[in-house]
Amino acid sequence: MPANRAVVYEGPGKVEVHSIDYPTYELKDGPGVNKLNVGRKVPHGAILKTVATNICGSDQHMVRGRTTAPQGLVLGHEITGEVVDVGPGVEFIKPGDICSVPFNIACGRCRNCKEGKTGICLNVNPDRPGSAYGYVDMGGWVGGQAEYVLVPYADWNLLKFPDRDQALEKALDLAMLADIFPTGYHGCVSAGVTSGSTVYIAGAGPVGLAAATSAWLLGAAVVIVGDLNEQRLAQARSFGCETINVAQGDPVEQVSRILGNDWPAIGEPLVDAAVDAVGFEARGHGSDSEVEQPATVLNSLMQLTRAGGAIGIPGLYVTGDPGGVDEAAKVGSLSLRLGLGWAKSHSFVTGQCPVMKYNRNLMMAILHDKVQIAKNVNAVAIPLDQAPQGYQDFDQGAAKKYVLDPHGMVRNRTA
Amino acid sequence: MPANRAVVYEGPGKVEVHSIDYPTYELKDGPGVNKLNVGRKVPHGAILKTVATNICGSDQHMVRGRTTAPQGLVLGHEITGEVVDVGPGVEFIKPGDICSVPFNIACGRCRNCKEGKTGICLNVNPDRPGSAYGYVDMGGWVGGQAEYVLVPYADWNLLKFPDRDQALEKALDLAMLADIFPTGYHGCVSAGVTSGSTVYIAGAGPVGLAAATSAWLLGAAVVIVGDLNEQRLAQARSFGCETINVAQGDPVEQVSRILGNDWPAIGEPLVDAAVDAVGFEARGHGSDSEVEQPATVLNSLMQLTRAGGAIGIPGLYVTGDPGGVDEAAKVGSLSLRLGLGWAKSHSFVTGQCPVMKYNRNLMMAILHDKVQIAKNVNAVAIPLDQAPQGYQDFDQGAAKKYVLDPHGMVRNRTA
Amino acid sequence: MPANRAVVYEGPGKVEVHSIDYPTYELKDGPGVNKLNVGRKVPHGAILKTVATNICGSDQHMVRGRTTAPQGLVLGHEITGEVVDVGPGVEFIKPGDICSVPFNIACGRCRNCKEGKTGICLNVNPDRPGSAYGYVDMGGWVGGQAEYVLVPYADWNLLKFPDRDQALEKALDLAMLADIFPTGYHGCVSAGVTSGSTVYIAGAGPVGLAAATSAWLLGAAVVIVGDLNEQRLAQARSFGCETINVAQGDPVEQVSRILGNDWPAIGEPLVDAAVDAVGFEARGHGSDSEVEQPATVLNSLMQLTRAGGAIGIPGLYVTGDPGGVDEAAKVGSLSLRLGLGWAKSHSFVTGQCPVMKYNRNLMMAILHDKVQIAKNVNAVAIPLDQAPQGYQDFDQGAAKKYVLDPHGMVRNRTA
Amino acid sequence: MPANRAVVYEGPGKVEVHSIDYPTYELKDGPGVNKLNVGRKVPHGAILKTVATNICGSDQHMVRGRTTAPQGLVLGHEITGEVVDVGPGVEFIKPGDICSVPFNIACGRCRNCKEGKTGICLNVNPDRPGSAYGYVDMGGWVGGQAEYVLVPYADWNLLKFPDRDQALEKALDLAMLADIFPTGYHGCVSAGVTSGSTVYIAGAGPVGLAAATSAWLLGAAVVIVGDLNEQRLAQARSFGCETINVAQGDPVEQVSRILGNDWPAIGEPLVDAAVDAVGFEARGHGSDSEVEQPATVLNSLMQLTRAGGAIGIPGLYVTGDPGGVDEAAKVGSLSLRLGLGWAKSHSFVTGQCPVMKYNRNLMMAILHDKVQIAKNVNAVAIPLDQAPQGYQDFDQGAAKKYVLDPHGMVRNRTA
Repeated sequence: MPANRAVVYEGPGKVEVHSIDYPTYELKDGPGVNKLNVGRKVPHGAILKTVATNICGSDQHMVRGRTTAPQGLVLGHEITGEVVDVGPGVEFIKPGDICSVPFNIACGRCRNCKEGKTGICLNVNPDRPGSAYGYVDMGGWVGGQAEYVLVPYADWNLLKFPDRDQALEKALDLAMLADIFPTGYHGCVSAGVTSGSTVYIAGAGPVGLAAATSAWLLGAAVVIVGDLNEQRLAQARSFGCETINVAQGDPVEQVSRILGNDWPAIGEPLVDAAVDAVGFEARGHGSDSEVEQPATVLNSLMQLTRAGGAIGIPGLYVTGDPGGVDEAAKVGSLSLRLGLGWAKSHSFVTGQCPVMKYNRNLMMAILHDKVQIAKNVNAVAIPLDQAPQGYQDFDQGAAKKYVLDPHGMVRNRTA
Repeated sequence: MPANRAVVYEGPGKVEVHSIDYPTYELKDGPGVNKLNVGRKVPHGAILKTVATNICGSDQHMVRGRTTAPQGLVLGHEITGEVVDVGPGVEFIKPGDICSVPFNIACGRCRNCKEGKTGICLNVNPDRPGSAYGYVDMGGWVGGQAEYVLVPYADWNLLKFPDRDQALEKALDLAMLADIFPTGYHGCVSAGVTSGSTVYIAGAGPVGLAAATSAWLLGAAVVIVGDLNEQRLAQARSFGCETINVAQGDPVEQVSRILGNDWPAIGEPLVDAAVDAVGFEARGHGSDSEVEQPATVLNSLMQLTRAGGAIGIPGLYVTGDPGGVDEAAKVGSLSLRLGLGWAKSHSFVTGQCPVMKYNRNLMMAILHDKVQIAKNVNAVAIPLDQAPQGYQDFDQGAAKKYVLDPHGMVRNRTA
Repeated sequence: MPANRAVVYEGPGKVEVHSIDYPTYELKDGPGVNKLNVGRKVPHGAILKTVATNICGSDQHMVRGRTTAPQGLVLGHEITGEVVDVGPGVEFIKPGDICSVPFNIACGRCRNCKEGKTGICLNVNPDRPGSAYGYVDMGGWVGGQAEYVLVPYADWNLLKFPDRDQALEKALDLAMLADIFPTGYHGCVSAGVTSGSTVYIAGAGPVGLAAATSAWLLGAAVVIVGDLNEQRLAQARSFGCETINVAQGDPVEQVSRILGNDWPAIGEPLVDAAVDAVGFEARGHGSDSEVEQPATVLNSLMQLTRAGGAIGIPGLYVTGDPGGVDEAAKVGSLSLRLGLGWAKSHSFVTGQCPVMKYNRNLMMAILHDKVQIAKNVNAVAIPLDQAPQGYQDFDQGAAKKYVLDPHGMVRNRTA
Repeated sequence: MPANRAVVYEGPGKVEVHSIDYPTYELKDGPGVNKLNVGRKVPHGAILKTVATNICGSDQHMVRGRTTAPQGLVLGHEITGEVVDVGPGVEFIKPGDICSVPFNIACGRCRNCKEGKTGICLNVNPDRPGSAYGYVDMGGWVGGQAEYVLVPYADWNLLKFPDRDQALEKALDLAMLADIFPTGYHGCVSAGVTSGSTVYIAGAGPVGLAAATSAWLLGAAVVIVGDLNEQRLAQARSFGCETINVAQGDPVEQVSRILGNDWPAIGEPLVDAAVDAVGFEARGHGSDSEVEQPATVLNSLMQLTRAGGAIGIPGLYVTGDPGGVDEAAKVGSLSLRLGLGWAKSHSFVTGQCPVMKYNRNLMMAILHDKVQIAKNVNAVAIPLDQAPQGYQDFDQGAAKKYVLDPHGMVRNRTA
């Protein structure tokens, strides 16, 4: 049984690479494992040798100490890997298959999975619908920022790439299928982005950039990205987006200036669709840009979006935030100007992206060179051992998407 | 030119029946008329003799003084009438036609109308997208709680009933097509109600009862209605709904008791779909039921609705509420527990119902006796002169839907 | 191991009840079993004691000798049962559960299943996408007109009823969830039936009656059913449908007479939506009503349906029909007047109903008494031994849906 | 009143440029004008100076003598123009506006228009739902291959371009919005094309090339175009499509070779979606490629399309074809292998594209340089006088889209 090294949360601001157990077909006790899941048999699982496993902005919430994540939690929910072994209940997935792993763990047997709502599977997390690898309050499935990882319900969850060599060649792009590409795409689809749309994306982190990429893939006419971070905005401009720096004032006015007055809806040029790729740790606009204001993004999106438009909300909002700015924020409440949204007949779509709904289609777009997701989000492969540095740089606003590459399989090919 | 008597808002708590001008094909200055609309020509209009014109819960917001409605405003946006004259630009509608008038005024020529979004027409209200008859900040179109009323863009806006006698026979039911039946139906459609759904409707006023009626028409398996008013709850029970009195405690627990533990989603029996038919003047639950708490309904719907469910919000939320309970409420902000909704992947659909999307279908259901909307909402026809009393009784919680009947055409037939 | 008696096809016009093997977790060789499926392991399967198993119109195609079904084929794909044992790969279904079995066998792991297209699963039938129990060219899964039956991929395929006693009480209704109720409902949904629709259903056999029932559940205003069989038309009238006898002449004219001239679309009263519940063994209209004319139904539906309407086609059309009326029919070709459909912008939706998409919702409607499907299709429970007589009576046009009741569990309760 | 020269059909194979009346706000008698439309007042109309007016493949059906088009019919339904005058009923469109004219004439007041089904408007053609300029059996609205043309219901029908200069600069692209770009796009949308799809387009004429362009805009991964004409196939390859020459044999086999065996659905590589951009004048495949076989395209699309896929049919099929190859073809009947489509659960969407549903979005994509439709279809502007030559060249298979440019406004800018 090979060794297995993994990225472990060791307390606020601290991640380390440790040796952990090699996966078996059983969910064992450990930090963050729900008691009801301890001892759960996983004959339907597959063990993957990790090809690529990305650091995600939602990992940062834990690492910053904004959650109740326990010390010792193995991190990582964005996984691409090679199947090295399968349990006795696996029928179609075979050792040697290179696969993408949707970050949402789903059973493929409950009402929600049957309806395609794999982000809120009823059978994998005793606490609530929905689960993910290596995440607080998600049932305790071991994280995938590791050399090897167990994927339950492998026949259901795994997306097999058609050709091994092609998959490894494009590994840096395909690695984005586990989470951020479908997540950004879901935000756009939820917001009604289609051919010819004008779109505003709040946030130029990896999910925001993936949403902007998705908006182009969906045929958008204009994509405007807003953020406080100039480096990340430059990244957005690198693939044709317009950008605004929300630290420099009201985004509504800035967006108006970009759109011109071609399409005034009673005086105001506005976008057809908007995506919140920021979530609950939002900061204010203009002079408030140093201050955390969790409702700022959503309130500005209601201003920015035309009547009849929709707002996709892939950015994470939480049910409890011990580090929230006030009592309301601590329980996940926001002061939303819903009256404005109502007057404009807005729709709001929230929640985890059901990755399985989109990943096959997006894989096809990658394999046929219709989209350059790795380039657009500035993905860089680094060794597993550099994960602590990657977390730190990412937290400080590096305009990069860090892809951990435990076995050098990504760097070998894409170098 | 005949006389024209109408219901006029004369200040908080005060409505009177006055003589007003007989309609002409021009929008003249008057209380609440936007300056940019003064003098607007309406050759595309039709003049209707009012058959039925209902008092609406949203009129109450004005009459209670919760808006900036000016003294002298002619009220009324729920109109059914007989065409008595048409302007030179009208081609298909003819005098003698009995028609339903969607409460949203729409031009039938702008982008939003072409997309079927007639609740946010761009050409009829200089202030913002969307308009209605007899309503504050809606452009100044004269209200229809009157003997005669002008309907602009008549070929587009009017729904002609196929047979005059049949229409008068069923006038009390058909009167609900102008607003509350489509509005309730839109709430249910937005919430994803379909065959076999379990549904919770917040509010047992006329829109809530219309939503409950719509849920049955859509094939719901269980419809639960919550309110503080026992009379209105009894009305809901009269057509098969389960009910809960939210003054008696937490609706979540009460709903659980009704649904039993047949369909636990990780421990909790929850509804598939929920409709907010209350809006911004919501009061608290349990011991808070005397206190206005504008976010109570939406927050409880997020608790009550299963993961993956949707929440339809036909209940009115406003951009400004001078009488709001606090500074946030005064600008239409609510403290919403969005983190909870996000965790459950909820969708939220707000705004005026685009009546035209549904009224023809619902008319067919009425004409073929598939639905008893008038009976379910307890519609009663009263003379125009009794409007002040009707407003007062309705404000005090009468479990009735008041239909003003200026020419006795409803009472003559349905007596 | 208990005995297992089953209904077996013994040649054109001949079915008999024989003893067959008790199910095991392996697909063994036998009449109609695809060689590639022989020996297939089924650890994910469950063995059901059959509560109810219906005779279907599509079984008749085989029994009439219109297919290449081999002698010895065990028939039956409409199954409701009690789980008596589960394979080692089954996690959520338990012995004692009373379940409905969708007639389409699906793996719950392939692209089509993940998209909800369980009628064309890629992994269960080596010949083509899609499978069913006891059916020619469907892979060889043993039929369920038997005392016991094996259901593969049990966690995915089975719909568990929430309460055992309630399920047995309503067994005759719930038995329709395996095929005809979802199939009729799918036909209506495909045809765009919604609140207030006018609908024409071609065929008053069980699927046609289920489609008519579904149209009512969906809120239709008018449902018209056409057939040649007066008994079956009387059955349709028993729950409020209008009917026409197509042997008495052109259905277009008859439908026009029923709809009146209220809604002329340029002269013709037409239905909003139409469903073909007849399929490839259609006979002609009027004086041709004794003659098989496979395109008659679809061609008349294009005439009957308004411009912009849709046509749902749950009625079976086949790729090969050895007994077809001409060379074209023998390979499943029909002379369709597509030019007419094109001029009216019709849509056509074909194929097996993906039962899983609808069965849970329809179960809820049954359990909460919103629909009386068993009464509407005139379901009658008979002992397994009377299957041969049931087949014969059904073939001769009895206006009944025969439910085989091998263990008396249906008759005991619903008597 | 200026002169008005126009392209006139003078009999099979013969078109000429003649002087015709300058438009007025009344529909006058003339060749092909329905008696019921003679004298119809058009106060809601606008008179346009034609900027661009294209020759369409469906014009060819008339010119080839395959219809009952009368001698003297003014041709042309693909119109882009500058408003020079408006009738008294026009409110929002102004002289000077540069606009695209959807080829389907629609009233904006009937049930179908309200539902967005502008291709089957009920009020503009006394013969049947749906109308177009300059087309046989479409009511008699005068064709737009002319210097000036009348557009009825101008506020509803016209799509105004935001900026005059920009519009003239991009006139050759924008000219495609009147018909072929939305028509090709509708074909793809109807076929379910989305991000990552594999698509087959039958036909490399202008509609086929527009469909291929649309497939790319919608994010397709692979677009394969089939035709008999090598020049047109080369045009398809010029923007990244794969191509097959159907004269060289079975398209199924050729498509398989292109797709490889990456995605075998039970042995066969197949496309996700297919579009018929050929219609009723289809010829056979392989050695039958000289022979008209009207059902060939649709039958091969059923073979080519994966189970669960859909087939969009923008190609024209007619209710009567005097020159049809046999009695069935003469009444628009085709021998379709529906049994095959049924086994694969195919959907079929037919009919005129409702241009208004798409033209604004596609305009945005053009104005923001997201699509090069003119280049892809090889649009060339020619003077009105060269129309006869254009018709002839197009009929002989030139891989060009001819844009008549009566006032030199296109050639002046785009030269």
